Amino acid sequence: MYEYNTMVRVRYAETDQMNIVYYGNYAQYFEVGRAEWIRSLGYTYKKMEEMGIRMPVVKMEVKFLRPAQYDELITIKTILKELPAEHEIAFHHEVYNEKEKLLTTGKVTLYFISVATGKRTAMPANLKLSLTPFFSDDHTS
Amino acid sequence: MYEYNTMVRVRYAETDQMNIVYYGNYAQYFEVGRAEWIRSLGYTYKKMEEMGIRMPVVKMEVKFLRPAQYDELITIKTILKELPAEHEIAFHHEVYNEKEKLLTTGKVTLYFISVATGKRTAMPANLKLSLTPFFSDDHTS
Amino acid sequence: MYEYNTMVRVRYAETDQMNIVYYGNYAQYFEVGRAEWIRSLGYTYKKMEEMGIRMPVVKMEVKFLRPAQYDELITIKTILKELPAEHEIAFHHEVYNEKEKLLTTGKVTLYFISVATGKRTAMPANLKLSLTPFFSDDHTS
Amino acid sequence: MYEYNTMVRVRYAETDQMNIVYYGNYAQYFEVGRAEWIRSLGYTYKKMEEMGIRMPVVKMEVKFLRPAQYDELITIKTILKELPAEHEIAFHHEVYNEKEKLLTTGKVTLYFISVATGKRTAMPANLKLSLTPFFSDDHTS
Repeated sequence: MYEYNTMVRVRYAETDQMNIVYYGNYAQYFEVGRAEWIRSLGYTYKKMEEMGIRMPVVKMEVKFLRPAQYDELITIKTILKELPAEHEIAFHHEVYNEKEKLLTTGKVTLYFISVATGKRTAMPANLKLSLTPFFSDDHTS
Repeated sequence: MYEYNTMVRVRYAETDQMNIVYYGNYAQYFEVGRAEWIRSLGYTYKKMEEMGIRMPVVKMEVKFLRPAQYDELITIKTILKELPAEHEIAFHHEVYNEKEKLLTTGKVTLYFISVATGKRTAMPANLKLSLTPFFSDDHTS
Repeated sequence: MYEYNTMVRVRYAETDQMNIVYYGNYAQYFEVGRAEWIRSLGYTYKKMEEMGIRMPVVKMEVKFLRPAQYDELITIKTILKELPAEHEIAFHHEVYNEKEKLLTTGKVTLYFISVATGKRTAMPANLKLSLTPFFSDDHTS
Repeated sequence: MYEYNTMVRVRYAETDQMNIVYYGNYAQYFEVGRAEWIRSLGYTYKKMEEMGIRMPVVKMEVKFLRPAQYDELITIKTILKELPAEHEIAFHHEVYNEKEKLLTTGKVTLYFISVATGKRTAMPANLKLSLTPFFSDDHTS
């Protein structure tokens, strides 16, 4: 398992007239969580695209437990529970407010796609290498 | 069952640098689908809010099968399969492109909430009444 | 002069907790107005991009006179007052609500850019041809 | 004069198929800039709303000089050049990329509005007090 936490402050633009964050905007928070999760491994999604791999989302599941509000500093926890065996990777996301209340949970599944061929491909080798220590049997931290 | 189709043209703002609609924007399409579904029954979500009932989303599941692209005139099919027994209502959404290819499916679950009490409540009686013919046993259309 | 009107219904996603359309969302309405303005001339912005011309925005001025609200069917009037002499084109936009009250005015200036060279270019000849009748001295309609 | 710098990382959601930040999204960057500008003075826009004052935008002017791109860490400089005499306040914004190139300039004018009366009002006294040192004649920093 490898997880990483990112903080984001809720923008006015992200609220709606229910005085809470619009439900569609959590997809952006999850995206930011994944981008920082990758960066924490010494890699970036930007570099991955430049090297010819894209990661379109194929599935998303979200549970909205409590609303997020304007100006709250929310924490997006991004978790990889299993190393991808093939072309598919699934991230779990949890969004917490400043009082550490769980607001939202999400699971986002993406494919690794080669820009050159348009076909499914495997996770880049160096990203997989960075992750391997966190998924070995005797990993203790 | 009661279903209603709405058409939306994809905006440039809704695309991302993958040259497709950003995955988070489908929540807006589903919202538009539900708003027009309610309007087709002679009611509006706006009126419902003015009468003191709000419908926050509590759950969303989306499958992204094919991408939608800029300027496509997409059709959002919004389906209610079961009359809500209590405070919870679940809509199914299907998004099609102009070639009638299925692009995306979604299931969005919402609660009816009383603004006055902040508590869960039932579907407004007149909306339920409009829907009843479509869910009776001998409904033939 | 050539003008064209487009109607858009305000989405819940476009409101903020001030119960009005977020000020940043008018740029999308103006974009929709320009896209339909071009389509009304038998052309599309999508085709223009496919033919190798892009139109990035270089300047925008907006005045917010009255707020737009959720579910309002607003009209976006898009006006070209002068044929572009060179690579620059300026559109005027006016947004009206259902009571025909003027809500917002905008002026958006764009460049014609060749994708191949990355340099400024002229308006496509066939689009200019479609517009010429509306800008001739003896135009009577 | 009082200015404050805020950094924001460009989200994938904020790009469009021109591979740059969509022009309408700068309004959000400016909003974030203003929110952090106020916070730097020991105040928040959230508190201001809770105390019954809202700040709708009445005018915006933006010049797009160079595009911002995905994953860039941009700096939003927010500048108040003059203390508001009445109900109107004008902020200047400048957006820079990591190479300190100026990408965008903006001027956003807002009103102070009392929620209770719906009418224009003055800047809250304690916010004005925090600003006064930066606008006195003998201010040297």
